[in-house]
Amino acid sequence: MNEIVRQMGVFFNPRSVAIVGASKRINKAGHVIFKNFAENKRRGVFNGELYPVNLREDFILGHRSYTSLSKIPGEIELVVIVVPASAVADIMKEASNKNTKAVVIITAGFSEVGNTELEKVVASIAEKAHIRVLGPNCLGVYDISTGVDMLFLPETKVLSTGDEFVATPRPMAGHIAMITQSGAFGVAALDYLTGRQMGVSKFVSFGNKCDVDESEMLEYFLQDNETSVILLYAEAIEAGRKFMKVAKQVTARKPIVAFKSGRTKAGARAAASHTGAIAGSDRIYDAAFAQVGVIRVGDMEEFFDVGKAFAFQPPAPGNSIGILTDAGGPSVMAVDECELRGREVRKFSDETQSKFEELKLKGKLPKFATTLNPVDITGSATSEMFELSAQIILEAPEIDGLILLGLHHTPALQEDFVDRTAGLAKHYTKPVVACDIGETEMAMFIRSRFEKLGIPAYSSPEDAAKSMSALVEYGNYLRKINRFHEYLEVYTTFHS
Amino acid sequence: MNEIVRQMGVFFNPRSVAIVGASKRINKAGHVIFKNFAENKRRGVFNGELYPVNLREDFILGHRSYTSLSKIPGEIELVVIVVPASAVADIMKEASNKNTKAVVIITAGFSEVGNTELEKVVASIAEKAHIRVLGPNCLGVYDISTGVDMLFLPETKVLSTGDEFVATPRPMAGHIAMITQSGAFGVAALDYLTGRQMGVSKFVSFGNKCDVDESEMLEYFLQDNETSVILLYAEAIEAGRKFMKVAKQVTARKPIVAFKSGRTKAGARAAASHTGAIAGSDRIYDAAFAQVGVIRVGDMEEFFDVGKAFAFQPPAPGNSIGILTDAGGPSVMAVDECELRGREVRKFSDETQSKFEELKLKGKLPKFATTLNPVDITGSATSEMFELSAQIILEAPEIDGLILLGLHHTPALQEDFVDRTAGLAKHYTKPVVACDIGETEMAMFIRSRFEKLGIPAYSSPEDAAKSMSALVEYGNYLRKINRFHEYLEVYTTFHS
Repeated sequence: MNEIVRQMGVFFNPRSVAIVGASKRINKAGHVIFKNFAENKRRGVFNGELYPVNLREDFILGHRSYTSLSKIPGEIELVVIVVPASAVADIMKEASNKNTKAVVIITAGFSEVGNTELEKVVASIAEKAHIRVLGPNCLGVYDISTGVDMLFLPETKVLSTGDEFVATPRPMAGHIAMITQSGAFGVAALDYLTGRQMGVSKFVSFGNKCDVDESEMLEYFLQDNETSVILLYAEAIEAGRKFMKVAKQVTARKPIVAFKSGRTKAGARAAASHTGAIAGSDRIYDAAFAQVGVIRVGDMEEFFDVGKAFAFQPPAPGNSIGILTDAGGPSVMAVDECELRGREVRKFSDETQSKFEELKLKGKLPKFATTLNPVDITGSATSEMFELSAQIILEAPEIDGLILLGLHHTPALQEDFVDRTAGLAKHYTKPVVACDIGETEMAMFIRSRFEKLGIPAYSSPEDAAKSMSALVEYGNYLRKINRFHEYLEVYTTFHS
Repeated sequence: MNEIVRQMGVFFNPRSVAIVGASKRINKAGHVIFKNFAENKRRGVFNGELYPVNLREDFILGHRSYTSLSKIPGEIELVVIVVPASAVADIMKEASNKNTKAVVIITAGFSEVGNTELEKVVASIAEKAHIRVLGPNCLGVYDISTGVDMLFLPETKVLSTGDEFVATPRPMAGHIAMITQSGAFGVAALDYLTGRQMGVSKFVSFGNKCDVDESEMLEYFLQDNETSVILLYAEAIEAGRKFMKVAKQVTARKPIVAFKSGRTKAGARAAASHTGAIAGSDRIYDAAFAQVGVIRVGDMEEFFDVGKAFAFQPPAPGNSIGILTDAGGPSVMAVDECELRGREVRKFSDETQSKFEELKLKGKLPKFATTLNPVDITGSATSEMFELSAQIILEAPEIDGLILLGLHHTPALQEDFVDRTAGLAKHYTKPVVACDIGETEMAMFIRSRFEKLGIPAYSSPEDAAKSMSALVEYGNYLRKINRFHEYLEVYTTFHS
């Protein structure tokens, strides 16, 4: 294990943690964070030592509290700071005396509001003491497996009616790691990922990054066995050369999906006043990402959609997409989106076409079904037609991936078309993504059933096509660097 | 009322209807359609005469059935045909003998599968008899106020577990009219609109359009008092000159949101094998739509998002957008999307800035809030801060529309920020759109609360920005043709 990985590991799995600014007051960030740790410790999820630090309290939530870090008897690997900015430098000095390895500064009020001097002071104390610092102005870390949870946003909120609603949920366990510069977007993402039932391995928000940056986190996630996909939201990446080097290593083994905002002049200006980020030319990011195999997305929804695709499906072995549907219009939308993104939806080979003709002759497909690609089995669709047609497309050597647009509305279609096509997909290493349109019971059921069976499902044809396109893009990169088969082997082992 | 409007009116509000192919068998389209009419008649929603036509039955669902149209004693204004294609020409002849005014041919198997000859025969019978024809290969009409409902897709489906799920719901009453060439996309749209609680006035699917086309429907919706926004999905518009003329009349008074697919070569090929559409050059559509003020969208989600914006909000008086948020990252995303679409997010005037400085001095806004545009009141946000800041932006003469990115996750923010900002928005004619990110309880609640109070709410910053951008685009067009103030007057009366 290299030094960076060892250092980053302390943030995710510390032997001992002190929360400076732990509090009894329920609306304080220091309360929420300490309670997260205390409850995870009680439940046996968090197994490190836990110390609250507070000037005035003797006990917090049943834990003996200390007035300063220096009063704590044992070692303190990790310190989480939740007190006002003016007190942070002194706490950093105490932490260096305690031989602390890592500090998370949740506190805001540093370079993002022009207080650059203070941030430099803090960083220099840390550097001298060999302390790694996450933040300031960040949300810190959430790790579902070790019980490290620094999210200070309340999990529920009580409305004026007295109803209690989930407000900032914690997602279920899974294989997506998320790195975000914006804390607000980070929590919003957790809310989104939870609602969409997308599983997360680790979450880290690095804010002003006075020390630790995205590259070091990428290096850590590269070796993290629980992480198979990395989502990165950034407003600026200052250490470009370092990023390129690390990203290149990572993408040879795990996909990185990057959402880089501040693309326009006004957007960059907004980013600067948010995290002090200097966004730089957007084209340079485009080129840099492409060079090292980072998949760049254009907006928030695509960010999650593509992340989901990678969590569920292998990269595509080529550029040619097959589309199977019972809904003509939506299939045209999917074709458009594929082609606009440089993918091909071309006519099937004669051999593949003749297989469909055979099905028609046998009465297994409607005579008026279109079968050139897209295959439109029309409103007469049954589960068997979906299964038989999907098999032909997955078998076709000229096709590298399948978009299944199975709209549930057609009268004769039973829900087992999901199980049948998903079962079939398991026998092939070509990626499959699905789409059903609608927001009522049946559409929700179909999409969630697909995902339970390992097929990412989307609510619009374009979203499905965008996600498939990302699987192609990553496949193209892996082939370019001669790592496609190696990746696929690992992927197959991991998913079997 | 002009002749076209009178003719189209028969499809939506017929004095008498015969369903040819009405059936007792529950899985038959002819059963579902007849039952829709029969139930709406029993409930007093459909007030016309209703006749089932079936070769073998005496009664269907308690209604006396006839073996042919000619046996029906009274007049038949409208005939709905749900029998195989081979029988359609004969039925058309019978319909002409009965002086029928309009026919809807639900039946597929015409030009979309190469059976162009039969379609021509049918069209020529209709023309000679002055019968207007919708279809073939279509879903026909759904009109919530008159009880005309030709949707043959089952409203619910029973799973193999025995559970019954809503499968093709009917949306609630509202002011969006939808015209769609693709039937499959049409029902999917109904599912989407219902789930998102978007109200619909009328729905029409015209399929192969052997006679009636989108232009005639547009003309009808122009004078329909229940319709304030028109959504048009098309794969090809053949009668271009006619469309331009009608669309120009319509957009002077009501927004048309057009989703034209078949944009790429492969997409156009797919469209051709779907509805026989010849898609034509995509750039020509772009230019034509822009010339007559039709708002073109790029994908399915934008189609509905923009439709919702027009249903709720007025067009913008100019190009300059203000953004108010408690979440820095998402505000950068919104700025990017606005700017990429040609909108401006520029710094506030000195006067507006000084109003924010005043709030800070009074302790009403955090000192470290950024207030140049976007306004980021940060994680310390309260409802009062949102209200005070929104008011300053809505008052600012240099700002033409407001995007409210109110993420519910910040600890001190109470849900009444929705009521406060929405209440404020009512006093201004500048458009306001909102966004909250997340898919769990609180996010759903916040978005739906905004919409109950007349502010369209989106789940991503980019969706909110796209919708605001469409309100700007339409405003620009209305000003160009000198109809902005007239439109706003009608809009204000309609929405008060």
